Amino acid sequence: MSKKHARSLAAELDSFISPYRVDGSEKFHLKAQKTNARGGLDKVGGEEILAANRKWLAHFQEKLYAQDRWSLLLIFQGMDASGKDSAIKSVFEGVNPQGCEVTSFKQPTSKELDHDFLWRSMIALPERGRIGIFNRSYYEECLVTRVHPDVLKAEKLPPKLVSKNIWRERFEDITAFERYLSRNGTMILKFFLNVSKEEQRQRFLDRLEEPGKNWKFSMADVRERGYWSRYQAVYQDIVRHTSSKVAPWYVVPADHKWFARVVIGSTIVAALESLNLQFPRVDKESLKEFEAVRKALEQEGKGSKTPA
Amino acid sequence: MSKKHARSLAAELDSFISPYRVDGSEKFHLKAQKTNARGGLDKVGGEEILAANRKWLAHFQEKLYAQDRWSLLLIFQGMDASGKDSAIKSVFEGVNPQGCEVTSFKQPTSKELDHDFLWRSMIALPERGRIGIFNRSYYEECLVTRVHPDVLKAEKLPPKLVSKNIWRERFEDITAFERYLSRNGTMILKFFLNVSKEEQRQRFLDRLEEPGKNWKFSMADVRERGYWSRYQAVYQDIVRHTSSKVAPWYVVPADHKWFARVVIGSTIVAALESLNLQFPRVDKESLKEFEAVRKALEQEGKGSKTPA
Repeated sequence: MSKKHARSLAAELDSFISPYRVDGSEKFHLKAQKTNARGGLDKVGGEEILAANRKWLAHFQEKLYAQDRWSLLLIFQGMDASGKDSAIKSVFEGVNPQGCEVTSFKQPTSKELDHDFLWRSMIALPERGRIGIFNRSYYEECLVTRVHPDVLKAEKLPPKLVSKNIWRERFEDITAFERYLSRNGTMILKFFLNVSKEEQRQRFLDRLEEPGKNWKFSMADVRERGYWSRYQAVYQDIVRHTSSKVAPWYVVPADHKWFARVVIGSTIVAALESLNLQFPRVDKESLKEFEAVRKALEQEGKGSKTPA
Repeated sequence: MSKKHARSLAAELDSFISPYRVDGSEKFHLKAQKTNARGGLDKVGGEEILAANRKWLAHFQEKLYAQDRWSLLLIFQGMDASGKDSAIKSVFEGVNPQGCEVTSFKQPTSKELDHDFLWRSMIALPERGRIGIFNRSYYEECLVTRVHPDVLKAEKLPPKLVSKNIWRERFEDITAFERYLSRNGTMILKFFLNVSKEEQRQRFLDRLEEPGKNWKFSMADVRERGYWSRYQAVYQDIVRHTSSKVAPWYVVPADHKWFARVVIGSTIVAALESLNLQFPRVDKESLKEFEAVRKALEQEGKGSKTPA
């Protein structure tokens, strides 16, 4: 890959990024978002972009790791079968796992419930130089807890703190937390995989019919499908209240898995490009030392001709 | 100790609490605070209150632990030799260590520096039902980092994020974080042990002269003494910008160690009293079951007369 790029990636990939970005500057309506958009691409064209993005991702990740200043936090949310797991697998294929960690947030443990709701996410935040991927996240604490009040009860909050303002407060706290992280070197990108109810039905059927996908099927997922419209309303509320310039939501059309991956990959590489990452510069003093060490190592090779 | 208390502790101990509370409602001037106040007490009277407070603390802590909803976060800040360690030791004497954890924040490790500045404090936050004591805290990241710019550099922030607004931003982030914690069941009390420069000099001399205190003496502390007025100015700025109703600062007169402990202990027990802690109620169904189990256990004792 050439190091100089005639146009920036951000400009080149813009049509797969900006139509789906929500940064709080305009009122957001979930129903206005198409779940089956494909950005004028066919699947073959999409796969090409996906492959190119993977190379850019590996390229930027090496610099991110070497520079050791910024970290990247990627949040994936979406209904069951919206394609979170497979998108993560596909977009990050070939990325050095040493600089990349996926955390999947399941039902909280008793230890996690003994803490404030951000705690288990905080301890999993990526170090400087790393990419942290959250498969589900603290947004579940404004989502499943809201659709199912019993789940909120399990959080063991003192009853007087569970007020009618709790969701507004959580949005405010999350927004402040993300602003804090961004001020301290964590770039945050949040992906909501926006799948249609019909597409979810098809994917559930696939899980039932194909033996290789059986393990993914769960009765609980089908029960949650019964709350579809409630979840959609809450997701819209989340995107409305927690989108910001420093932590935008990307509402990713997810009926075509390949196109979702184009949007996600493009968004990530354009964001990494914007950081203007550089390998750490070696100063002149060190370069002199390097030269001396190089000579010494060469000399050593001439002295002993037998292999160790 | 009687369970009913004629007057509330808060009322009884108010003269040792409210003169030192800063909650952001008035402009704060550090120089207006006496370091040698003693609240009209002598040392003997002070020791009596301290002893009574210890008993109340043990009493409330048992309920806090049993109820398992609230947690208490106590932050101790102050110049070297202001008495943080000895105050913690004295005030918490006799408290069940199972429900109480002290975290002393020293120079950050390389792992801690690889994270945002709140991270190492977040992971040490007390669980529900527990008391967490921070001996120094995230306030050091607005303090020693500000007095010594080299320490800030070690935090490995991306250079473009180190703006002239960094202290204002940190105050804002800390205030938002404390508000978040208070909304999620953590009560926060912050103690600044306000010692005079002359008293610090005396305590350093004691450390040099008394063999049993030698281990506490450090040359680094004496060097920091050279920055006394800078530290005082920064502490004033911290108290001004991070005091709030939900996370007030207590500017504790610390020239008399015994009086500092009266103020700290009184503040903590009055705060715990305000939570109206209760042992969890056992419902009627369970009471019936308990009765059945009690009878069965008694019957078992009658059946077998030989000790196991």
